[in-house]
Amino acid sequence: MNTTGQTPEARLAELGIELPVAPKPVAAYVPAVRTGNLLFVAGQLPGKDGKLLATGKVGVLDIDGAAAAARQCAVNLLAVVKAEVGELSRVRRVVKLGVFVACEDDFVDQPKVANGASELMVAVFGEAGKHARAAVGTNALPMGASVEIDAIFEVD
Amino acid sequence: MNTTGQTPEARLAELGIELPVAPKPVAAYVPAVRTGNLLFVAGQLPGKDGKLLATGKVGVLDIDGAAAAARQCAVNLLAVVKAEVGELSRVRRVVKLGVFVACEDDFVDQPKVANGASELMVAVFGEAGKHARAAVGTNALPMGASVEIDAIFEVD
Amino acid sequence: MNTTGQTPEARLAELGIELPVAPKPVAAYVPAVRTGNLLFVAGQLPGKDGKLLATGKVGVLDIDGAAAAARQCAVNLLAVVKAEVGELSRVRRVVKLGVFVACEDDFVDQPKVANGASELMVAVFGEAGKHARAAVGTNALPMGASVEIDAIFEVD
Repeated sequence: MNTTGQTPEARLAELGIELPVAPKPVAAYVPAVRTGNLLFVAGQLPGKDGKLLATGKVGVLDIDGAAAAARQCAVNLLAVVKAEVGELSRVRRVVKLGVFVACEDDFVDQPKVANGASELMVAVFGEAGKHARAAVGTNALPMGASVEIDAIFEVD
Repeated sequence: MNTTGQTPEARLAELGIELPVAPKPVAAYVPAVRTGNLLFVAGQLPGKDGKLLATGKVGVLDIDGAAAAARQCAVNLLAVVKAEVGELSRVRRVVKLGVFVACEDDFVDQPKVANGASELMVAVFGEAGKHARAAVGTNALPMGASVEIDAIFEVD
Repeated sequence: MNTTGQTPEARLAELGIELPVAPKPVAAYVPAVRTGNLLFVAGQLPGKDGKLLATGKVGVLDIDGAAAAARQCAVNLLAVVKAEVGELSRVRRVVKLGVFVACEDDFVDQPKVANGASELMVAVFGEAGKHARAAVGTNALPMGASVEIDAIFEVD
């Protein structure tokens, strides 16, 4: 699927993205569970350097910032995947993203927000990064985050 | 599981349902991803002939219309499945529906809305159409749709 | 994974928890679907003895009650699993919980609510109970419930 010959890590570096340290397991749940060749990754918030990139309900004027936050959720998903499987080249396919956007009741562009995450997956994995997706609104997310994304990956 | 001997396509025809052309892949995500025998289908809106069957928040008075919209989401899910696997008889089981209903805060009948989709699956696939399900509310969905449904199918 | 040598049923008994009768299949969907080694369990509400343990939107003052409701959702998930596979010792791993918390717009502690379910899984299954999780808010749930949780289990 990778037509460039580069590793996913090399593409991340070209994009200027450094993967953070994956979140530590907390008491009662863990960042990811592997079953067979599927890796279920817990919902990630747009945390970067200890802060959330975007908080509060997304409205029409905030689409770009929210898409950047969705991209950061995707970065954090990849940090978890790398911690689990060692090298991102062991990802065979990004299977599914579940995208939750905290938003105003009249907001209708959840897909544009979600694209921030989806486009990163394709930039990093090429064809193997193309995934099924659900993007929905919500009235509230943990820590007041504007976006939360969980994911399923197929891995070697 | 099919006790009638009819193909799923024949049952759809009996129900007067013509499957639409499956949505085209967009830039960064795709309508469905297969991994092993599981087919993860992206969230579908109740689009028909270029329009959404229902928009806005569902309230008590709108249950029937919202259930019809959920049924249309299910039709669109089946269009994607058919495009992916060729014949709906290759569906071994409808595994899971995730049903999101844009609704008023005091709305409590998300299951009645979701039944519009669930009942279609059973009408088309018989026992193999019986699935696990989550039905929840939300304050907002893409394009202002009243319902969005994603799904997992087991396929040959 | 079980370091105590006890069965999950014995641990439930020690916790004073009696599994309810699993909900009966309704017309168009079922409590769980198995595909391969994965068991997808339908969204469970915090019903106990015919009543919901918590209804209405969760706010800051209601975290403990909502966490207890989440725990009851987990009990109901386990009742379904036991009905499907016979003995809870056939659970190899709790893979994923999807936790929906009906909440005020300014509520940010969905994870604390979800912990009520997560901690029960670990209490019952030990290491095998540690799962991936998404916890999000919503404006409305079926029957006015405060919490709904669906799940994926890996089973023998």
